[in-house]
Amino acid sequence: MTEGVAALGGALERGEITSEDATRAFLARIEARDGALRAFIRVMREEALAGARASDERRRAGAAKGALDGIPIAIKDNIDVAGVPTSGGIRHYRDSIAHEDAFVIRRLRDAGAVILGKLNMHEAALGATGDNPWFGRCENPHRAGYTPGGSSSGSGAVVAAGLAAAALGTDTLGSVRVPASYCGTAGFKPTFGLVSTRGVMPLSWTLDHVGFLAPHVADLELLFAACAGFDREWAYARRGPRFLSPKRADPSDLRGLRVGRPALPSPFEPDIASACKRAVEALAGLGATIVDVELAGYDFSRMRREGLLVSEVEGATFHKEALERDPEGFSAGLRGMLAFGAKQTALRAAQAYRRLADVRVIARRAFAGIDAMVLPTTPQAAFPFSQAVPVDQADLTGFANIVGIPAGCVPFGKNGDGLPLSVQAMAPAFEDRLVLDVLAALEGAGPA
Amino acid sequence: MTEGVAALGGALERGEITSEDATRAFLARIEARDGALRAFIRVMREEALAGARASDERRRAGAAKGALDGIPIAIKDNIDVAGVPTSGGIRHYRDSIAHEDAFVIRRLRDAGAVILGKLNMHEAALGATGDNPWFGRCENPHRAGYTPGGSSSGSGAVVAAGLAAAALGTDTLGSVRVPASYCGTAGFKPTFGLVSTRGVMPLSWTLDHVGFLAPHVADLELLFAACAGFDREWAYARRGPRFLSPKRADPSDLRGLRVGRPALPSPFEPDIASACKRAVEALAGLGATIVDVELAGYDFSRMRREGLLVSEVEGATFHKEALERDPEGFSAGLRGMLAFGAKQTALRAAQAYRRLADVRVIARRAFAGIDAMVLPTTPQAAFPFSQAVPVDQADLTGFANIVGIPAGCVPFGKNGDGLPLSVQAMAPAFEDRLVLDVLAALEGAGPA
Repeated sequence: MTEGVAALGGALERGEITSEDATRAFLARIEARDGALRAFIRVMREEALAGARASDERRRAGAAKGALDGIPIAIKDNIDVAGVPTSGGIRHYRDSIAHEDAFVIRRLRDAGAVILGKLNMHEAALGATGDNPWFGRCENPHRAGYTPGGSSSGSGAVVAAGLAAAALGTDTLGSVRVPASYCGTAGFKPTFGLVSTRGVMPLSWTLDHVGFLAPHVADLELLFAACAGFDREWAYARRGPRFLSPKRADPSDLRGLRVGRPALPSPFEPDIASACKRAVEALAGLGATIVDVELAGYDFSRMRREGLLVSEVEGATFHKEALERDPEGFSAGLRGMLAFGAKQTALRAAQAYRRLADVRVIARRAFAGIDAMVLPTTPQAAFPFSQAVPVDQADLTGFANIVGIPAGCVPFGKNGDGLPLSVQAMAPAFEDRLVLDVLAALEGAGPA
Repeated sequence: MTEGVAALGGALERGEITSEDATRAFLARIEARDGALRAFIRVMREEALAGARASDERRRAGAAKGALDGIPIAIKDNIDVAGVPTSGGIRHYRDSIAHEDAFVIRRLRDAGAVILGKLNMHEAALGATGDNPWFGRCENPHRAGYTPGGSSSGSGAVVAAGLAAAALGTDTLGSVRVPASYCGTAGFKPTFGLVSTRGVMPLSWTLDHVGFLAPHVADLELLFAACAGFDREWAYARRGPRFLSPKRADPSDLRGLRVGRPALPSPFEPDIASACKRAVEALAGLGATIVDVELAGYDFSRMRREGLLVSEVEGATFHKEALERDPEGFSAGLRGMLAFGAKQTALRAAQAYRRLADVRVIARRAFAGIDAMVLPTTPQAAFPFSQAVPVDQADLTGFANIVGIPAGCVPFGKNGDGLPLSVQAMAPAFEDRLVLDVLAALEGAGPA
């Protein structure tokens, strides 16, 4: 079966397949593979088939709704789907039924998408391995015993394994892009507030974003177009899609585009560094001007820790009552992180918030002479669960969350060990389409 | 001498007066009256006269810079003026010389304005009476023994007493509008981030705004036009003046304008309520449609307290080291408020920040069917220092700080006791010019 939103949409439109058959094919793959992958917390078989049949009927009646109609999409389990629980990967919430769809689910349904099920994730979205103590260790489809990344672990795994046409994830410091990187999928988180997080279990309302994982950049574009929308009823909305800059006329012609190559502190795995170098060269080959930039004053690991502190404080605020009532409903590790947040003083929190806000100035300076930035997505490729978890997994992704700017990634070859590599693009707020254009260019230019 | 920025600017342009003569006239008034008013912390006599003479030379050479050239303006003492101390009304900082001008001071100087001196204020901007323990009790020019309001106490007093053509203030929960109300001046604080607070001693970087006090709305417009500017080097800037909506063609024709009259909880002094009622009627008389609106879910006094808590927490963060080194440099009352901030937990702070953010939704709903809102500025007129300080002074002003929307006020008659009354206007973010237009209409329609 054709992979991804755009390709499957084309097949549906041409009548080469029905949504019901596509959905059945995904369900069959899930049955075959998910026992080992543990990517799903809940497969919504009957609801999905009913949704697929309704889509097929609309299409037969000539009333198909557009590019997402009939496309099976899987949802990270911290996003409310009415009628089923939103666990957030936490035992305490495993039976907490959502009474309303999240804003993005409503958008997907309005577009005719088929909701395939709810996905495993790192507990509380506070971590990046997907080794969930309650719902099982989610595996990387590329290699058994390896992490798919996280916290949107199931989202990366189902897209990489072809168990859904696309997946929704959330991204607080990199939780969409890290699993996309390790699993070899495309991933994108829009400008803060442009896709409402209403109905998403918060980790940190200051940093949380909804994002998308899919096989190809064209899929991300369709998902973004369907889900972006100004939500007047949500405090964290800023401004709506009418502030977005337009798409470039021809994404394979990058003349005039200034692409920044930021100075990065970490000593990367050589494969990561050379993939990024080849990516930049590929953009130059399409006409882009490459500019070396410094994120002067930005300490990648320190600011990742500040973002983590804000997440722990806000997470502890959100889970406070549940933690008091049912401590055993949270893993010891998660309890420890939330307790660390809870023991901080107001002054420490205020200082952390201010440091996050100060990074906007660094971003403004960095983007003063460039249109977009290209950098690796993660400092390493997927690693085995047997290995100590590197602390720097979100060092390269967190900048975009802290500043609220759009960021995405695409696979870019393999490392010496045969595991996916990934490159990331970022641009100023509301330049979401430019990020997608740069990703499309990289996708077109990348190694197979 | 002619009062206010616009009128004095006209006189300068017509050659009816020189900037030096105008500056000398203000200095003479200051000498005559400020001993009793205690509005100035520092009169910058020689610097002001030098600035005035430079302006006069520009004008003689046909190189006057515009509407502010040669206009004497006084500055609240929490705004950096290079070469003189920025005390913030706090003894500890009384000799802390500023090495650079604040962003707004740079803007005023670029426009040719004459800096007349630094103004008394409520200690640390954390309070609204102007009864400063270190720099003296600032008096209301309308009646001895009465508060001028605060925290921009000196700013209100000098404008009301004609000791400057205008004054800069700062407004965290109402600190420009409260003194403007009690002193019978016009006052305005723009959209959050539209006038940079760089170089302003913070009380709360989340809520602080720079604002303007002057005799007339036309003066506020000139000050705003000179000072508004996107400051790329300041974290709290959002977007620049190019996002501003345009002025109305004719501010005395309000047809098509929907003015909201919000339901307010407090039982006001009857004079306050009737002034506001007459103000709304006046706008209706100019063609505006009056719409009753509810700020549903907004608890005025509770949210003022949440804003105060954030101010106490952020203030305690900013002053932490100085407080530890030199507790006696802060009054016992101020120390108590900052200690209250410092003893809060990170969770309480995160909750307060979130509650502030949630008010944006209330504002979006309120403004869905209206263009602007008119309400009283303060729940009471100026009161004697001998009276207990009402807790609700900032209840009606804080909403605009919490949401970050533009708000201003104009005098609107007197109460039965002969003290100034004031009405306030607010509009959505970047509708600053609309607020000024509504204020101009109210000024034109108001009782003498």
